[in-house]
Amino acid sequence: MHKQTIKTSTNEYDVIIGKDLLSNLESYLPHNYTNILIVTDETVSKLYLNTVKEALHHKNNIGISVVPSGEATKSMEYFYQLQTAAIENHLDRKSLIIALGGGMIGDLAGFVAATFMRGIDFVQIPTTILAHDSSVGGKVAINHPKGKNLIGNFYPPVAVIYDVTTLHSLPDREIRSGYAEVIKHGLISDTTFFKDVVNTDLTIPLNSDITVEHLRKGIAVKAKVVEEDEKEKNIRKFLNFGHTLGHAIESELGYGEITHGEAVAIGMLFALRVSEGIFDQSLPYEKLFEWMQHNHYPLSIKWPTIDNLIDKMKLDKKSENAVVQMVLLTEVGKPAVQNIDDATLRTYLEKFIRELG
Amino acid sequence: MHKQTIKTSTNEYDVIIGKDLLSNLESYLPHNYTNILIVTDETVSKLYLNTVKEALHHKNNIGISVVPSGEATKSMEYFYQLQTAAIENHLDRKSLIIALGGGMIGDLAGFVAATFMRGIDFVQIPTTILAHDSSVGGKVAINHPKGKNLIGNFYPPVAVIYDVTTLHSLPDREIRSGYAEVIKHGLISDTTFFKDVVNTDLTIPLNSDITVEHLRKGIAVKAKVVEEDEKEKNIRKFLNFGHTLGHAIESELGYGEITHGEAVAIGMLFALRVSEGIFDQSLPYEKLFEWMQHNHYPLSIKWPTIDNLIDKMKLDKKSENAVVQMVLLTEVGKPAVQNIDDATLRTYLEKFIRELG
Repeated sequence: MHKQTIKTSTNEYDVIIGKDLLSNLESYLPHNYTNILIVTDETVSKLYLNTVKEALHHKNNIGISVVPSGEATKSMEYFYQLQTAAIENHLDRKSLIIALGGGMIGDLAGFVAATFMRGIDFVQIPTTILAHDSSVGGKVAINHPKGKNLIGNFYPPVAVIYDVTTLHSLPDREIRSGYAEVIKHGLISDTTFFKDVVNTDLTIPLNSDITVEHLRKGIAVKAKVVEEDEKEKNIRKFLNFGHTLGHAIESELGYGEITHGEAVAIGMLFALRVSEGIFDQSLPYEKLFEWMQHNHYPLSIKWPTIDNLIDKMKLDKKSENAVVQMVLLTEVGKPAVQNIDDATLRTYLEKFIRELG
Repeated sequence: MHKQTIKTSTNEYDVIIGKDLLSNLESYLPHNYTNILIVTDETVSKLYLNTVKEALHHKNNIGISVVPSGEATKSMEYFYQLQTAAIENHLDRKSLIIALGGGMIGDLAGFVAATFMRGIDFVQIPTTILAHDSSVGGKVAINHPKGKNLIGNFYPPVAVIYDVTTLHSLPDREIRSGYAEVIKHGLISDTTFFKDVVNTDLTIPLNSDITVEHLRKGIAVKAKVVEEDEKEKNIRKFLNFGHTLGHAIESELGYGEITHGEAVAIGMLFALRVSEGIFDQSLPYEKLFEWMQHNHYPLSIKWPTIDNLIDKMKLDKKSENAVVQMVLLTEVGKPAVQNIDDATLRTYLEKFIRELG
């Protein structure tokens, strides 16, 4: 079991990573809560809800809300439904919301916790690899039809309890999706970490010890950045590596057509090409491309028009005054934020789309 | 013109109070914003929107959202509508939302600002006396059908620009409503301030200089409390004096039937009676009662059942584990938080309702 303490401007909390943590859940909660609302989705509830309920069985008041799986649930409708559930389960300011699931559940339940009675405690129990990213940094949000994560808060959990045993139930595309963010944490921080991850074969079953190690390192990279820049004024933008195009692809293809990480992986390839062009540097484009190919990441997608992509890239929260900002690399481990004018962006996009075929 | 700086855990901001500030609005904004969304209601827009627009006329991008007047607008529906307006007006993280209006507009537009792209700047331009209270302290929220202000954040504005000239357009019941909170700030802080306010005749036109003075003192009381306890862990609860019963009355009669301040005024009378009983002290119940009577505060209302009142008092965010917490006074200027069991509460309520008639 690894424990890492994350400091934020307002509090600090532990991320606990290990095997078989769920059955001892109560011992990892930072306080003794009377009223708890567990928020989970239909997929995860079938797998782990009973274990969690069992682990909390002598608590007085446990409410449960199961919402549909998938990004579409991060909506105003379910946000409101969960607020109602919190009221109906008599949650008060000393109560707890448990987010049991992947990034969608963490974002949605976290935003409910951030706003219910102006903020109550919440604990994340991530059940995906991707959630190693979203569960650190305190970003919670729901989507607006016009853009992802447009309505939200910075609101850290009081604990993250990461039971890697749950990752064995992940379908292949969820493993790919999660590992894209692990790769990202390698690319923006450290060549050794990047090389280590890019030598991992995702087509064979995950090795728990290696997974714990990758998650631990990924979380450490993320934690270091967000501790320095919680509110995304400057260096936190580095975490957006691959996301400017990635978000645009996700949004244009429709959430669900391609996973978040798969879209980000394509976005990282693009960011590497742009970096090579702008900084006249050699970067591990081929290495990443081959790893993605070997592990069945989608590479030939149904591309939206370039106009639509650029429009969506401008809607990205990181952009200001309608100029696209991208995170590039001057070398592996050295990210830099760069404004890219529309004409340059168009040229790079045309070439990149031709190249991927 | 008075300027008072309020410190919060995350920033500090100025409250500027004076006459004819609106026409020089731009000089009071803390930054130079490119994109601005003005949020106001139908009543206030007819009176002051043109002045504000004129004052900002050379800005590039000013969006305007006018929502219906009244507490019912503090809803999920209008919250969502304003998020859409923010997107459609191309607001980004460096943009500003201006809340032009009373407490409802401040709460609603403030909560939109707190959550749009996880938080952008907002400035309050209060146009009511009541808003002297709500514009300091950083509480923003919308209502849930099951309770007031249940969905919100702690999110301070970057400036409060209080033009007392706007107060001359207030209807009598709005003046009464606002002055109830001024009285409250007197009662929980200082006998002299309380006596000064309770000697003010609200049935004749407001004197601008006296109003500035009362607002300034009220804001100072509130600011002192919230600077010490931003997140309402302890002494901020004192500001809830009169509100436990007040909120219950508002909610049971239906928002709009009685103004917030009118309900709080009745709540303060009740809190004084309970305080006298519990602490065996003489408190200025008669003085407050006579002032309320002289100034046409509603005193004989259509009382809900005591069961319903107690239920609603328990739903108050300040209550924990279903015991009603009330703020009482051991003497004027000395508030104290007290748990009151249901039987005691019932006895006091029965007697109080009989007494008011």
